[in-house]
Amino acid sequence: MRAPQEFPLDGLPERVTIYEVGPRDGLQNEAAIVPVEVKAELVARLAAAGLTTIEATSFVHPKWVPQLADAEELLATMDRAPGVRYPVLVPNERGLSRALALGVTDIAIFGSATETFARRNLNRTVAESMEMFAPVVARARDSGVAVRAYLSMCFGDPWEGPVPVGQVVAAGVRLLDLGCHRLSLGDTIGVGTPGHVTALLAAFAAAGVGPERLAVHFHDTYGQALVNTLAALRGGVTEVDASAGGIGGCPYARSATGNLATEDLVWMLSGLGVETGVDLPSLAATSAWLAGRLGRPSPSRVVQALSAAAAETKE
Amino acid sequence: MRAPQEFPLDGLPERVTIYEVGPRDGLQNEAAIVPVEVKAELVARLAAAGLTTIEATSFVHPKWVPQLADAEELLATMDRAPGVRYPVLVPNERGLSRALALGVTDIAIFGSATETFARRNLNRTVAESMEMFAPVVARARDSGVAVRAYLSMCFGDPWEGPVPVGQVVAAGVRLLDLGCHRLSLGDTIGVGTPGHVTALLAAFAAAGVGPERLAVHFHDTYGQALVNTLAALRGGVTEVDASAGGIGGCPYARSATGNLATEDLVWMLSGLGVETGVDLPSLAATSAWLAGRLGRPSPSRVVQALSAAAAETKE
Repeated sequence: MRAPQEFPLDGLPERVTIYEVGPRDGLQNEAAIVPVEVKAELVARLAAAGLTTIEATSFVHPKWVPQLADAEELLATMDRAPGVRYPVLVPNERGLSRALALGVTDIAIFGSATETFARRNLNRTVAESMEMFAPVVARARDSGVAVRAYLSMCFGDPWEGPVPVGQVVAAGVRLLDLGCHRLSLGDTIGVGTPGHVTALLAAFAAAGVGPERLAVHFHDTYGQALVNTLAALRGGVTEVDASAGGIGGCPYARSATGNLATEDLVWMLSGLGVETGVDLPSLAATSAWLAGRLGRPSPSRVVQALSAAAAETKE
Repeated sequence: MRAPQEFPLDGLPERVTIYEVGPRDGLQNEAAIVPVEVKAELVARLAAAGLTTIEATSFVHPKWVPQLADAEELLATMDRAPGVRYPVLVPNERGLSRALALGVTDIAIFGSATETFARRNLNRTVAESMEMFAPVVARARDSGVAVRAYLSMCFGDPWEGPVPVGQVVAAGVRLLDLGCHRLSLGDTIGVGTPGHVTALLAAFAAAGVGPERLAVHFHDTYGQALVNTLAALRGGVTEVDASAGGIGGCPYARSATGNLATEDLVWMLSGLGVETGVDLPSLAATSAWLAGRLGRPSPSRVVQALSAAAAETKE
């Protein structure tokens, strides 16, 4: 199989943790319900490919995300590999109770940098959402559960347009101050460019938040996800969200496209000599299998290219 | 229309010249013949969108590239905008004669960094191809025609695998020494990563070839085209090859995919505050129109996203 030659670049971390969001962020917008057995196999195959952090599902109300209505069943039946963390998205105290009852050890909460998205996604102001999260984080930590925070619309908002960097930092600091161990900066609509990433990291650093407390979460809507990721790594970030096969489009907004594809990220990091622990052929085979189950090609360039090359070899 | 916010990054050029290859490199592998009127309209629309260098066609023998068999007719009929250059690919002396007869002022030749591709594409060794190019370049320059050189397989070869950096530099220096004014480094199979780009530019600099004599030509097969472009810009390169809409897949090798999409490049450069002179909405509209003529969606993420957003607005 083709692979990149290794040419390191100065100023990059030796190792990057990939926070795999495919089973949750990737699948949640699939209109056709994916059987729970397929989800369990996906999670198991991702772990077998070397991913060590796999966001498995969400306890958002099934009315909003019917695809993940089987969260309890998935968590009760899926295999867990040693050394792998399986965080679960938890929107509120009720979700936390469900997660704790199933022995979940890692959760994620989902905040917004903008008032419009907070209102639309959480039905609250940003300030009210912080009040909602505070007891969730406190009770999770009391139970020994680690809490990660997502912050969406960090680089632009579909209704508000540009989002000031200071507004993003203010919201992010509040989430971290609640007791979250890490903050994932989301470019939910994919509009950001590398200088924007660098500026946002600098603004967080000026507010006392170093890159070791941050992660990045890019969508590839305008093709910028990978170049933005490299900008974040240059800024010291060592945790990157990605979705196997680049899944994650939204059927209700055709202009919203998938996450950074884990394979495209691994290709770059492999070429740069940055360790991820991920076996690319195994991961790409998993995404090709999932694409077959979802009934359409993977958006990942690497998965497309490797699948095409494999098909040619067979001819 | 959505657009990126502007956040400059240190160490980048103020202005980048986009060398648009869509009409030639993009179209040449299209199996269904595109009418010459459509090609002329494409070239005109690209110029109207602000592109100042547009490779219009090729004088390669029609047996090898039937799509561009109408080169004479296109050049005789297409409109030319003031201040815009329209280079033509010329493989040999016979092609040069055809170009000179039509008053072409800019040509490009196409060399290979590897013996296998030289044999397959030019039916010659690398050394023999240099002998073939020498009189072409000399006669072109004597006629006041500027000659650009492409060098393919600079980052890997589908038959030979890894390609040593020193071998690429040796072939590139020979092309420049023939009298070419600029050398475009091609990642024909798209395997390169940013550290590889940086290492290759450093090797050229060590051989006395600065970035002002280089351009980069990336294919997005593994999703690396844009991140590699930024690495090249950091290395001082100011001319970037790209294809409107990202067209350029090869129907004979499904694992070969298109060029870097001009729109995805312009989005990034616009966000970085790097001047290109290109009007993105106009360019994206051109690529959406061309995709309709070619009968399939553009591979460009930006074109896909803007087209989808426009469709939503109309609903």
